[in-house]
Amino acid sequence: MTVFDLDDAVAVLGRTPAMLSAFLGGLPDRWTAATEGEGTWSPLDVVGHLVHGERTDWIPRARHILAGDPRPFEKFDREARLTESRGRRLGELLDTFARLRRESLATLAGFALTGADLERRGVHPELGEVTLGQLLATWVVHDLDHIGQVARTMAKVYGTTVGPWSAYLSILRDRRQ
Amino acid sequence: MTVFDLDDAVAVLGRTPAMLSAFLGGLPDRWTAATEGEGTWSPLDVVGHLVHGERTDWIPRARHILAGDPRPFEKFDREARLTESRGRRLGELLDTFARLRRESLATLAGFALTGADLERRGVHPELGEVTLGQLLATWVVHDLDHIGQVARTMAKVYGTTVGPWSAYLSILRDRRQ
Repeated sequence: MTVFDLDDAVAVLGRTPAMLSAFLGGLPDRWTAATEGEGTWSPLDVVGHLVHGERTDWIPRARHILAGDPRPFEKFDREARLTESRGRRLGELLDTFARLRRESLATLAGFALTGADLERRGVHPELGEVTLGQLLATWVVHDLDHIGQVARTMAKVYGTTVGPWSAYLSILRDRRQ
Repeated sequence: MTVFDLDDAVAVLGRTPAMLSAFLGGLPDRWTAATEGEGTWSPLDVVGHLVHGERTDWIPRARHILAGDPRPFEKFDREARLTESRGRRLGELLDTFARLRRESLATLAGFALTGADLERRGVHPELGEVTLGQLLATWVVHDLDHIGQVARTMAKVYGTTVGPWSAYLSILRDRRQ
C-alpha cells in the first residue's frame, strides 16, 4: 500500500483551481457546455460539483472524523452540482472554487494532523469504516478523476471532426461519465 | 459531423501550456515521475512527447498539406519523448513546450487559413487521405488525450491509498497508456 503523505496530497489539491482556470477560463461555450450525452456532465457542471464538494464533503467529513463522531457521514449529493452551476457563469464558479479550496487547505493546515490522526476512523454511509488518510487521498483522486472527465468531454466534441485519426485517439472511446 | 472552427481549436491549443504548468510545475517527483507500470509514460514523459510534437508533427504536417506535397507525411516517432525528456527537468520542458506552442500558433495564424484550405488533403503514412481540418482537430484531441493520461497516471499513485473509496473512483480502473 502506498504511504499517504499529506504534503504530497496538498501539492495536488492546491494546484487544481489554477489549473482549471488556465484550462477552462474564457473558453467558448462549445467546450464548457458540452456533455458526453444525456445524463452526463459538462465542464461547467464539473466545476459546480467541485464547489459543492468544498462546501459539504471533504472538510466537513474530516471534522466529523476528528470529532470522533460515531454516526455515519452525511451522504454527498452528487446531483447538487446542478444547483451550484445553474445560471452561474463559469468564471464565477472558478473563482468561487479557488476561494473555497484555499479556505479548505487553510483549515486542513490548522488541524496540524499527525500520523496517528491520519489513522483515525469514521463511518461512510455506504462503504463502512474509512480512515482520515483515505478521505484525504480520495479528495486528491476525486480532483484528478474530474480533470480527466473534463478532458474527455471536451475531446468528444471533436469525435468525428478528427476523421481517420479517431483510430489513434483512445480518449474518444473512453467511458462516459 | 461537427463543424471545425479554427478559433475554437486555437482557444484550447493556446491554453494547454499554462494549464500543464499550473498542474505540474513544482510538483514532487512522486507525481511527475509516476507511471501506470512498465512501458507506460510519466507526466514528465508526456510533456517531452508534446515538445516533440510541436517540433515534428503538427505544423510540419500542416505545411506539407499546404505545399500540396503528394508524398505521405513523415511518421511521427511516439517514442522520441524519451530523447526529449531524458535528463531534463520538468520545469525546463514545460517552458520549452510553452515557447514552441506559442511559435506554432503564430505560424498557424500566419497561414491565414480559409475554409477551403481546411479541406485540403494530405496522405498519412498509415491512415491514408486526411484533411488539414482533421489534422488541426486531431492536434486538439491529442492535447486532451494526454491531459487525461496525466490525470489518470497521477490518480493511480493513490490506487490503494484511498481504501474502500476505490469503488467510487472509476479513474483508478481506466485503461493504461
